Amino acid sequence: MLSMPSIIEKKRDGIELSNEDFLFICEKIETIPREQLGAFLMACQINGLTNKETTDLTLAMLNSGKKIPKETNRVDKHSTGGVGDKMSIILAPALRACGAVVPMLAGRGLAHTGGTIDKLESIPGFNTGLLLEEMATNPCFISRQTEEIAPADKILYSIRDITGTVPQIGLITASIISKKAAEGLEKLVLDVKCGKAAFMKNHNEAKALAKSMVATGNSLGMKVTAQITEMNNPIGKMLGNSHEIVECIQCLKNEGPKDTMELVYSQANSLGYDIREVIKNGKALDEFKSMCIRQGVTHDTVEKLVSDPWSVLKRSPIKTEIVSSTSGFLNSIDAYEVGMILCELGAGRTGSSQKINHGVGCKLTKNIGDFVEQGEILLEFDSDYEISEDFLESIRSAVIISDKVPEIKSRIIEIIS
Amino acid sequence: MLSMPSIIEKKRDGIELSNEDFLFICEKIETIPREQLGAFLMACQINGLTNKETTDLTLAMLNSGKKIPKETNRVDKHSTGGVGDKMSIILAPALRACGAVVPMLAGRGLAHTGGTIDKLESIPGFNTGLLLEEMATNPCFISRQTEEIAPADKILYSIRDITGTVPQIGLITASIISKKAAEGLEKLVLDVKCGKAAFMKNHNEAKALAKSMVATGNSLGMKVTAQITEMNNPIGKMLGNSHEIVECIQCLKNEGPKDTMELVYSQANSLGYDIREVIKNGKALDEFKSMCIRQGVTHDTVEKLVSDPWSVLKRSPIKTEIVSSTSGFLNSIDAYEVGMILCELGAGRTGSSQKINHGVGCKLTKNIGDFVEQGEILLEFDSDYEISEDFLESIRSAVIISDKVPEIKSRIIEIIS
Repeated sequence: MLSMPSIIEKKRDGIELSNEDFLFICEKIETIPREQLGAFLMACQINGLTNKETTDLTLAMLNSGKKIPKETNRVDKHSTGGVGDKMSIILAPALRACGAVVPMLAGRGLAHTGGTIDKLESIPGFNTGLLLEEMATNPCFISRQTEEIAPADKILYSIRDITGTVPQIGLITASIISKKAAEGLEKLVLDVKCGKAAFMKNHNEAKALAKSMVATGNSLGMKVTAQITEMNNPIGKMLGNSHEIVECIQCLKNEGPKDTMELVYSQANSLGYDIREVIKNGKALDEFKSMCIRQGVTHDTVEKLVSDPWSVLKRSPIKTEIVSSTSGFLNSIDAYEVGMILCELGAGRTGSSQKINHGVGCKLTKNIGDFVEQGEILLEFDSDYEISEDFLESIRSAVIISDKVPEIKSRIIEIIS
Repeated sequence: MLSMPSIIEKKRDGIELSNEDFLFICEKIETIPREQLGAFLMACQINGLTNKETTDLTLAMLNSGKKIPKETNRVDKHSTGGVGDKMSIILAPALRACGAVVPMLAGRGLAHTGGTIDKLESIPGFNTGLLLEEMATNPCFISRQTEEIAPADKILYSIRDITGTVPQIGLITASIISKKAAEGLEKLVLDVKCGKAAFMKNHNEAKALAKSMVATGNSLGMKVTAQITEMNNPIGKMLGNSHEIVECIQCLKNEGPKDTMELVYSQANSLGYDIREVIKNGKALDEFKSMCIRQGVTHDTVEKLVSDPWSVLKRSPIKTEIVSSTSGFLNSIDAYEVGMILCELGAGRTGSSQKINHGVGCKLTKNIGDFVEQGEILLEFDSDYEISEDFLESIRSAVIISDKVPEIKSRIIEIIS
């Protein structure tokens, strides 16, 4: 007979769990003592999950909640999170302009990483809490996770978060793929960030996670592609919440930074769409405006937002310029350090219940590889308080300038499908 | 800064925990989310605990509660649990008769193993719930664990019990030794059972546990000896609760079975006492009577108990004799099988809140090595219900009779100090 202690003991002893074991856990999850869930997750963390176990857990989590019916041309993207990672907000309307249906469920930022939902909430009136029935008939939205989709994941994630069981590839895979599978997708593209400011620090880890998510997603009937992308330097030129919305509008006007657009184009391409034309001809921007209006923003606000973003977005009043103390080539900017400082200044949260300050952010005035003169501005911060000397020192040491011309590489390291 | 997630992550990653980590857990245990305790215990279970970690955890658990001051001649014994394991009830008064102070905290039975507390509670009026202040001035008692001693162990044990984290040597050691150290002992003898009906199935496991408990107990200032003893055949001739009290009185009258007395003598010897004389001259029996009276039994009941035990003890009314279907030498009796059947008949409990039936038990009429004629009685069961044919079949198959004369070995396999 199935029981939680016997399932825990199997996993503890390295025996592969069955489909029934995972169904038992996900069906009874609300009544299982939390010490048993903690012990179970730690046994999974240390002993690992096989591909079959990962698929079985993903299916059990998917089936714990409601699903949107599957549909052709229904596509989505998921990123493991980075600094300046704003591509979803450009990609969703651009895909819609090409005829795709985009039911995008996104997350909030944690620690140094930003969150798509936080960024969108800097737009006055933007409703990120759509109901499942609203989602089913909406051709393109970006909304928060709902309680109805994969509720077992919500409970397991809240436990993983405090029990040292977040960094396990099978558990990460099941958490992400179960929610995406509930969206009724035909295709999914995954952006697996790799580097100092990413969850996966090295290529091998990122590749293992990418492969696991692709295999599990495919076995659930989606066509999944994963891109492993560099996450050492910040993405684009604007970091923060309002700040990244400003940059998204520039991108949708075909005035965006090269690295950001390379990633957006590549993600669209993995889903079978070429979005260059709709970026050029303004149709992507029109779809962005329509999406904002469908999610509660007034026509007036949307028009102001696209013509003069800072006229409706909050921007913190105190400007701090970081200037170069030397001349040379800009080799790198440590995205983790800059992300952590922005987080401390209020742009992110250090605990899940914290409020964020949408007006805090920074602008990068130089590209990696640019020659910088001594005294030239490198970064411009907007904050509500004067930045302390400690933080200024950290920011300065996050920027590496040298005589050497750095090699400029594509952010895309590998594509797995 | 110390935090539960960071301690869990250290243990997860195989890093040795510090004294401060264990103190943090034991001091804050009531406020730590139970999923974190479950995850922590599973990380200990899978990755193991070093000797230093085991000692640090034991000390932290000891210091989570009250202690009886240390005193010379204060001695105790602990057994890991078996079938027919009644030696504590003989040993405690015998040691007292030799001048020792015996503050014995004992446990209840679980599954097939009997518990000293359950056995004593078959004596009408015997109070097994002494208060800590009563214990401090009592020269010889057998009582239940109190809430005041090592409360952190109580919480951790209740979690281990349902999370697959019972069988870890460091955790077992800390649980046992922290409670014994709180008794203010000079010396401690441990009976580590080994075999089919024991928690430790083989010699290597038993030896590892014995060494861990001896090292940890010694490092806490007690002189600890561990005896590894065979637990395949039941100990003595009487099994059950009332039944074992009857046999204890026989032993205290110097009429006990050889195997039982060998174990009692050896345990006393490890504590520095020769109890043969006080068993012979009746002083041990007198101390048993005094102990009963100090723990609430009336003089009248005690006198009846020692002169005609069944006149005051409960005995279930239905007698079932198991007879031999063949002639030959009695090779073995599977103590696990017999213990499980007694448990099912009501002598033990299958869950921690279950009530037990003190009158259920059985008598072994033959010794291992005896020649048995076909049709001779092997076991006599006392129960409240007719024993089902299934159970009878199990009992018969638990007894091995063959042409071969079995080798009669001492129950004492190894002594470690």
